Amino acid sequence: MQAARLHEYTDDMATALSIDEVDRPTAEASDDVVVEVEGAGWCQTDNHIIEGMWQEYVPQELPLTLGHENAGTVVEVGSEVNTVEVGDSVICHPVMTCGTCRPCRQGEDMYCENVRFPGLTHDGGFAEFLHTNERAVIPLPGDVDTTDIAPHADAGITAYHATKKAVRELNPGDTAVVIGVGGLGHIGLQCLDAMSAADIVALDLKESARDLAAGLGARHTVDPASEDVPGVIADLTDDVGAQQVLDFVGADQTTALAPDIVAAGGDHHVIGYGGHIHEPAQSLVDGEFSYKGTLVGRYTELQELVALVDRGEVDLHTSRYPLSEINTVAERLEHGEIEGRAVITP
Amino acid sequence: MQAARLHEYTDDMATALSIDEVDRPTAEASDDVVVEVEGAGWCQTDNHIIEGMWQEYVPQELPLTLGHENAGTVVEVGSEVNTVEVGDSVICHPVMTCGTCRPCRQGEDMYCENVRFPGLTHDGGFAEFLHTNERAVIPLPGDVDTTDIAPHADAGITAYHATKKAVRELNPGDTAVVIGVGGLGHIGLQCLDAMSAADIVALDLKESARDLAAGLGARHTVDPASEDVPGVIADLTDDVGAQQVLDFVGADQTTALAPDIVAAGGDHHVIGYGGHIHEPAQSLVDGEFSYKGTLVGRYTELQELVALVDRGEVDLHTSRYPLSEINTVAERLEHGEIEGRAVITP
Amino acid sequence: MQAARLHEYTDDMATALSIDEVDRPTAEASDDVVVEVEGAGWCQTDNHIIEGMWQEYVPQELPLTLGHENAGTVVEVGSEVNTVEVGDSVICHPVMTCGTCRPCRQGEDMYCENVRFPGLTHDGGFAEFLHTNERAVIPLPGDVDTTDIAPHADAGITAYHATKKAVRELNPGDTAVVIGVGGLGHIGLQCLDAMSAADIVALDLKESARDLAAGLGARHTVDPASEDVPGVIADLTDDVGAQQVLDFVGADQTTALAPDIVAAGGDHHVIGYGGHIHEPAQSLVDGEFSYKGTLVGRYTELQELVALVDRGEVDLHTSRYPLSEINTVAERLEHGEIEGRAVITP
Amino acid sequence: MQAARLHEYTDDMATALSIDEVDRPTAEASDDVVVEVEGAGWCQTDNHIIEGMWQEYVPQELPLTLGHENAGTVVEVGSEVNTVEVGDSVICHPVMTCGTCRPCRQGEDMYCENVRFPGLTHDGGFAEFLHTNERAVIPLPGDVDTTDIAPHADAGITAYHATKKAVRELNPGDTAVVIGVGGLGHIGLQCLDAMSAADIVALDLKESARDLAAGLGARHTVDPASEDVPGVIADLTDDVGAQQVLDFVGADQTTALAPDIVAAGGDHHVIGYGGHIHEPAQSLVDGEFSYKGTLVGRYTELQELVALVDRGEVDLHTSRYPLSEINTVAERLEHGEIEGRAVITP
Repeated sequence: MQAARLHEYTDDMATALSIDEVDRPTAEASDDVVVEVEGAGWCQTDNHIIEGMWQEYVPQELPLTLGHENAGTVVEVGSEVNTVEVGDSVICHPVMTCGTCRPCRQGEDMYCENVRFPGLTHDGGFAEFLHTNERAVIPLPGDVDTTDIAPHADAGITAYHATKKAVRELNPGDTAVVIGVGGLGHIGLQCLDAMSAADIVALDLKESARDLAAGLGARHTVDPASEDVPGVIADLTDDVGAQQVLDFVGADQTTALAPDIVAAGGDHHVIGYGGHIHEPAQSLVDGEFSYKGTLVGRYTELQELVALVDRGEVDLHTSRYPLSEINTVAERLEHGEIEGRAVITP
Repeated sequence: MQAARLHEYTDDMATALSIDEVDRPTAEASDDVVVEVEGAGWCQTDNHIIEGMWQEYVPQELPLTLGHENAGTVVEVGSEVNTVEVGDSVICHPVMTCGTCRPCRQGEDMYCENVRFPGLTHDGGFAEFLHTNERAVIPLPGDVDTTDIAPHADAGITAYHATKKAVRELNPGDTAVVIGVGGLGHIGLQCLDAMSAADIVALDLKESARDLAAGLGARHTVDPASEDVPGVIADLTDDVGAQQVLDFVGADQTTALAPDIVAAGGDHHVIGYGGHIHEPAQSLVDGEFSYKGTLVGRYTELQELVALVDRGEVDLHTSRYPLSEINTVAERLEHGEIEGRAVITP
Repeated sequence: MQAARLHEYTDDMATALSIDEVDRPTAEASDDVVVEVEGAGWCQTDNHIIEGMWQEYVPQELPLTLGHENAGTVVEVGSEVNTVEVGDSVICHPVMTCGTCRPCRQGEDMYCENVRFPGLTHDGGFAEFLHTNERAVIPLPGDVDTTDIAPHADAGITAYHATKKAVRELNPGDTAVVIGVGGLGHIGLQCLDAMSAADIVALDLKESARDLAAGLGARHTVDPASEDVPGVIADLTDDVGAQQVLDFVGADQTTALAPDIVAAGGDHHVIGYGGHIHEPAQSLVDGEFSYKGTLVGRYTELQELVALVDRGEVDLHTSRYPLSEINTVAERLEHGEIEGRAVITP
Repeated sequence: MQAARLHEYTDDMATALSIDEVDRPTAEASDDVVVEVEGAGWCQTDNHIIEGMWQEYVPQELPLTLGHENAGTVVEVGSEVNTVEVGDSVICHPVMTCGTCRPCRQGEDMYCENVRFPGLTHDGGFAEFLHTNERAVIPLPGDVDTTDIAPHADAGITAYHATKKAVRELNPGDTAVVIGVGGLGHIGLQCLDAMSAADIVALDLKESARDLAAGLGARHTVDPASEDVPGVIADLTDDVGAQQVLDFVGADQTTALAPDIVAAGGDHHVIGYGGHIHEPAQSLVDGEFSYKGTLVGRYTELQELVALVDRGEVDLHTSRYPLSEINTVAERLEHGEIEGRAVITP
């Protein structure tokens, strides 16, 4: 089968991946599942992997087939798989977990001590077929399109996971700030709107993104290039600040907003990871706020997100590309030229 | 009456405060309370105030009587005070709150929109008498000594508040790391021991502090100068990491430990504020950990801490000094020469 | 001024209250507030008070002016009132609290150790003027009508309080059952819809109430008289049950539904109190479910509900009656002939 | 092998079970585990099963080998078992779960949609060998005795699970009431003491049980036969009540205590199930308290309890009996003649 593989780390997106002919995976362990990929979302993290940014965080061997936002049809299952069968439409949670370590037993899939992460530590879904396992697949309701839903496997669940943490702390009349209304941000904003009655303020440099935000439920939008963000948030909140901030950018400038815009006792969720945090400890103490890292999400959270999608609460803006154009997609995202989410259809 | 006042910001602790003759405060508003100070703890924050480090965070006018860890006897009350009367022994919560703003109504005393903070924004307790209000005072059980308990008013409640947040996330078999077993740390450690069944690991550069920690309930102690902290924590936790870290130092080196010692999903509580956080956003994402600022604590938490003290669960190591030696105390703390907590007895 | 007072407990609603001429209250304590009543909602609890059902639960002296759902305009304030002034439109939280006991300090207004409850323990709002205090009043946004919003002071906050507890446990795809779509239920249903993405199932014997529920966001409605409730819930939830049940009726038959319709680990919130719970302990154990009593709500929750109303998220169905028709209202409610909520306009 | 089996439901404990010769189980599924039983605790639930009390709650076919508190040594494992091997000492969580249904994925083992419960729905551990699976076994630290720890598999985890829920709501100075200091109660009491700083009040009719409670950390003990329980609790708590009540008896008289002893907002945990709840809905509303059913506990909670046992925090009072004396044990427990916990050693 064909697969888009990374052979060496590079900053040149135009030639990053090569389309190779490789063996099709088969179901060997009793819980193996092989999926014919019908949609595989391209993610900012793919650019980061190509640049080598994940080398020091996870074990990674090249060549590697990227692609961690996958959905498609089950074509083969191991001998003890009970929850799906051949022919089922499924979305794939990004990680394959063991089910027996303590984090798995707590429902914390991302902390599995024996985790395999297709597209990051093992071959992923920018290929005709994907090797995954029973604990990673979620059957889809009949009328959900596998290509359309694919980006929810990572972009969606990551936005949902952070939003769910924020929602627990948000009361009616409170303010939630969404920084960056891109691939993840526009999902997070819709989840916020569906699951809370907080006032949503969206920040984005692009006018089109701010317009999108307004259409999806933001009460206010702010252009950080021309407006004084702390001043605007202070005005909108009677000087209290925003109880929750969802930072889908994670750049030096966006994390630096926290002391000035987060309400006492509030949280600045770090979801995007474009830069650093540089902050005096005193500033976290004085405002009693937190920087909270967020990493993908639980299997059960992906089930919850599928329920939201099934009920029409979350709309995903996607564009489709064949496997052969994958490097073009990589380049365009690097230059901020992708609206919504690009999906590869191998 | 006599009061130790700061006339200008300085780095010279030896001459920082002058003992001035000032008017004794009186009870004017209906909820005013005047306390004869019998103990006023000296705190690292007093050194920071003297250096001018709080100027940009709070409104502050000089000359100012410092002292925010106060206990003593009520000598005068306003016309509508019901919960204490003249002659009662009390410990003073560090802030005077309005009781009607939304944070007050939520029990979040530190976020009061009309807060007054004696010793920081108004005259404090390094004086013979202190002006505070009914919402700040907690009557003490009969056999509690006002001088001994004074440092709990800030050091104690701050340690307790952070510990209470940590305890909620700690299960038996989990690990809690205490960084810095000084004035606050040795209280936090005892609270952890009383309120959880987690394994406590204490880090301190001083052997005497590590010995103290071992005696107060730490299962392991570590010398960061000679031991590889991440390696030790990994060994003790089967490579899982510590679910909760209480950083009573807050220096660049201690906040930098987080990615290497905090378990996935865990928290690094920033209590001390000796330095900065410098961390790539990716590291918070990859480990899904948080930096959580902590600021003093609630009035009701000081009630809970008094209950712990009353039941013999928390022992405070104090030494007493007359008001006239206050600059000596400032200097000694600056040089790390105070064991436990120094209490001024005006 | 005129006031509708109860002189003796009775089951005869037609003559329950008499319109008496009494002294108008004045502001004496420093935090007193006198409100000219523009709306005072009639509540099922008023019928219960008339029948003597609250005698054994609270201190109560007759004659008593009923009315605990009040809104209007401030006409007089005590000497230290800061948060409202004469002329302000306000809604009144049902209880006057002390602000200094431990429950008050925790934000738990309903547990105040010195609580006064106008309309239940002190004279209430079925009168031209109401005596309350600063801690009970919430200023209203400019365009909110005081008569329309009055029932939120108790019906609204009670429904909101229970719903908020339920929402914390509800994920997208989960099911929430609302039993009884009357005065409280139709508010609770709208709060659920605004604050969660759960599927709402509404039960009511009346077709008009079920139609109302469908219009306000219920995904399914059930007629308990003609349908098998446990069977319907099982079908709708794949045999899992409803994670949260909000029982606005609290009759023997409705509390008896719990073991058959609540999902494992879920809650049956007891809000209405028309009857009893009779259940083997084994049934709570086997299903690991809870019966959770709910009592009015916090002051800050009424602020949150006002924010919901201000944003158009909660619509209240009211009808208005002059003080002189108050016994007619009492009778009609007794016979289930009031749609939505009756508001007295003294 | 020998197994103690129930052939028909009966109230006559003296002849309840017969010792039969049956086939030894073998490991067939890839995750099967066969354990040589070295300890199997006898539980009040065993008496209830014999009486037929569980027939309507779970599927049950006779003859059935009882015994759901098992520990021993692994003697055979399925082909894909990774976490234990032959020769390992293990304690068995009471249920065998599928690991793929939504409750399993949330860590809620007891709600598994494909649950098997040896000793209740399948053959249990009053036999030489037990058939269980990988997801049910927890390896024991080297020095823990399998016979001694066996009762923790159900009595322990049930007490721990309820206590953990209570502890989350308990602050220093709060009061927790333990009703019944028997097999479960004396474990719960120790867990409370290890994991909270609340004041513990223990109720038991037997003096020996009250003495045990005092020795294990209860601050006060009460004899319900001779003392006025609500009066004592009111005295001890300044009329506030107990924030948490752990009812290990669950009789009509003990559940009836709730309105009089539970603090506003508190919980009455129903763990024992000897009787019924009969309570007006109004009483739950007026006191805003909950009756919370509790059912065994999670796999991860048994891990946490093993950690407590390993650290010497929980002591179990056990007595040992051979399989041949099993009906004698059944009878003695029925008559309240077993101190602590009886363990069968097949």
